[in-house]
Amino acid sequence: MAEQVAKNARIASTVLKTLSNEERIIALKAVHDGLLKAKLDIFEANVKDMQAAKENNLSSALIGRLDLSKGDKFDVMLQGILDVADLEDPVGKLTLARQLDQGLNLYRVTAPVGVLLVIFEARPEVIANISALAIKSGNAAILKCGKECFHTFTIMSKIVSESLAATVVPKDAVQMIGSREDVAALLDQDKYIDLVIPRGSRELVRSIKENTKIPVLGHADGICSIYVDKDADLAMASRILADAKTNYPSGCNAAETLLIHESLKDQVPQIVKGLIDAGVVLHASESVAEVLAASLIPAAQVVPAIEGDFDKEFLSFDIAVGFTKDVNSAIQHINTHGSKHTDVIITDNKDAADKFLKSVDTAGVYWNCSSRFADGFRYGFGTEVGISTNKIHSRGPVGLEGLMIYQYQLRGEGNIAGDYLGAGGKKAFIHKDIELSSVQL
Amino acid sequence: MAEQVAKNARIASTVLKTLSNEERIIALKAVHDGLLKAKLDIFEANVKDMQAAKENNLSSALIGRLDLSKGDKFDVMLQGILDVADLEDPVGKLTLARQLDQGLNLYRVTAPVGVLLVIFEARPEVIANISALAIKSGNAAILKCGKECFHTFTIMSKIVSESLAATVVPKDAVQMIGSREDVAALLDQDKYIDLVIPRGSRELVRSIKENTKIPVLGHADGICSIYVDKDADLAMASRILADAKTNYPSGCNAAETLLIHESLKDQVPQIVKGLIDAGVVLHASESVAEVLAASLIPAAQVVPAIEGDFDKEFLSFDIAVGFTKDVNSAIQHINTHGSKHTDVIITDNKDAADKFLKSVDTAGVYWNCSSRFADGFRYGFGTEVGISTNKIHSRGPVGLEGLMIYQYQLRGEGNIAGDYLGAGGKKAFIHKDIELSSVQL
Repeated sequence: MAEQVAKNARIASTVLKTLSNEERIIALKAVHDGLLKAKLDIFEANVKDMQAAKENNLSSALIGRLDLSKGDKFDVMLQGILDVADLEDPVGKLTLARQLDQGLNLYRVTAPVGVLLVIFEARPEVIANISALAIKSGNAAILKCGKECFHTFTIMSKIVSESLAATVVPKDAVQMIGSREDVAALLDQDKYIDLVIPRGSRELVRSIKENTKIPVLGHADGICSIYVDKDADLAMASRILADAKTNYPSGCNAAETLLIHESLKDQVPQIVKGLIDAGVVLHASESVAEVLAASLIPAAQVVPAIEGDFDKEFLSFDIAVGFTKDVNSAIQHINTHGSKHTDVIITDNKDAADKFLKSVDTAGVYWNCSSRFADGFRYGFGTEVGISTNKIHSRGPVGLEGLMIYQYQLRGEGNIAGDYLGAGGKKAFIHKDIELSSVQL
Repeated sequence: MAEQVAKNARIASTVLKTLSNEERIIALKAVHDGLLKAKLDIFEANVKDMQAAKENNLSSALIGRLDLSKGDKFDVMLQGILDVADLEDPVGKLTLARQLDQGLNLYRVTAPVGVLLVIFEARPEVIANISALAIKSGNAAILKCGKECFHTFTIMSKIVSESLAATVVPKDAVQMIGSREDVAALLDQDKYIDLVIPRGSRELVRSIKENTKIPVLGHADGICSIYVDKDADLAMASRILADAKTNYPSGCNAAETLLIHESLKDQVPQIVKGLIDAGVVLHASESVAEVLAASLIPAAQVVPAIEGDFDKEFLSFDIAVGFTKDVNSAIQHINTHGSKHTDVIITDNKDAADKFLKSVDTAGVYWNCSSRFADGFRYGFGTEVGISTNKIHSRGPVGLEGLMIYQYQLRGEGNIAGDYLGAGGKKAFIHKDIELSSVQL
């Protein structure tokens, strides 16, 4: 069953990738209109899911995520579909044109990755969001939701399918899988599925990464560090730290580790002022704790750092704090303990900043600003597929580009390799780049 | 042991990525000079490997690949190091610059992927080639060779290490692992190793892909198809087919499947003329065999296609031949049976070509030219890391670019997210692209 679903998605993807931007936009509008018309039915199903969640004593945070009628969530979700429809077409963009020889031209053209498997928990709006991203980018998608949004998922799937049926998008371009058991079987379909996108908890992402050979776009941990250099503006440091830690502590781009240049021993109370005022608890290394013991900082807000605190994503009003000898040891610490998400240096010294920006192996290297800017919308990508801590394909906040790859087109006039040097012939290649704007494929 | 090697490579990679192009070029020249000076010692070790191979009755093809003194192989290998040194620096190239707000600028800068694991068999020149590619691209590399080139590998490793020791490249930037047992352990180091590059047989690539979670750059199969459309120039088809099949039959870009539009039944002898003249054996479908039986083509060059022939990489003077109803069924056949390497349409009909170019899900879609052009040097990449049939990161012939990823740099003046819309504040983002050539980081 999982294999058939994946195979059908693959076939649908080869049709979907040939559709024009206009055809894909019409399909997105149809999905938008279908969901809008069914708003009350969707809310009804959504209430059932929330009731079941309460009966099963699920956390109030989870129930809040389930609730599609909360505030303007439903309208935002629908507007999101139209926003994605309006984005620049990512398919078929020319990124390289080169004359290999007279009458033999090479073109590199963007193309959809193929088939996406999206696994999510308790976030019914992902159905609309991912359907939109997939169709816009020409990728087929298989959506797999957690059982906690079963009713909402069932009706929304039905509406998305029905809406697409009236368009030229093949029906298997977006398939929805309800049952829990299929996850493992789907994760085995590396022959047909090109990319897995998990939307949910750290545990979900980790368990998916451990159970598939298919590339996974996303991140399990966001252990972001802030290094306060000896030449830092301390008021700036205090302000950035408060924002990075407390603006949204459960965000993956929240700061979890604070490293302070050891020459700033006496200035630590100044540096952590913003954190202390916001009520953050400092998990202090021994030497930091010593310095703070002599300060006016409430003892309740300083606890000794224990083993693992500098490798921990607290996701709460807690931060690990330690001294570091210099920018080099800060870099080394982050390259060893960080999660390659986003890391910050605060300094007025350009040399130290340059060293840090060049040396830290992380998706986002920041200078004098908050790690909280690591976000596709803030970067101006229009949408966000996820934030990747992978080292290949896409890194950091990922927009539609992350769902694209390319194909090489070679257009000839009967050219054969055997006529050229290196393959038995005498002709040399020209290898002359062609101005992209002059090409009409 | 494998973990320590991988960990050391990771640490070395964070230093290597900060070196300037000049520093990396000096290191490459040192490796070149070291190998040149030790030419005779290397040949001596190489002879031992070839003797051992003969004693172990290894194939003459393998012994040929082992032989570093054959023709100009050694000189070509050394020249390759200098050629790679001369390539444009792939590190630190600016690919996006955007003003998010006054004093808050986002930059996307190319960076090395990190740590490469290169596994190869019986090709000692890979040591020089990969060392050069890794150093030039700022990636650390772990090289693992098959036991058949043990002696050559041992001395060349020693020379590469000694040559690098006199430069600023960290000694663990290129590590060589001799023993066979470590492969499995190395393939488990997904925490430290970012990319595996296999150089060797299909079986090697397949076994690596099956035994690691680390992304593998390369391809197991090259099942390239050529579709001769009803509007094809038949003389051109015959010529391209002969080249694509026979110019280098053991190449992954050689043609393995020939699909002919069924309206060309009577022209089949004309189409396959080049193949027949070159001595190729046609593995013909029933209907093709029927047509050929009535022709002047030697019966010995036509055998019935058996199950699996249309999913087979012959790598010999053999090709599977079948009819197809139209361009759509050719596309469907290739999307089902191909290996996403390189596929060709021969036609004078632009609509059919456009359909094919858009719909075939393969790294190289070719129109009226030979599949044999699928090659990094022919594409003008200066070097080739491999040919990828993956769907993410890199596709088709891969140059140095395939060893690169990017980092986002965000440079601020104390900016915090909480001041902006969406995170509690009132400021809107500007999101204005900056002309790349005007940026001086």
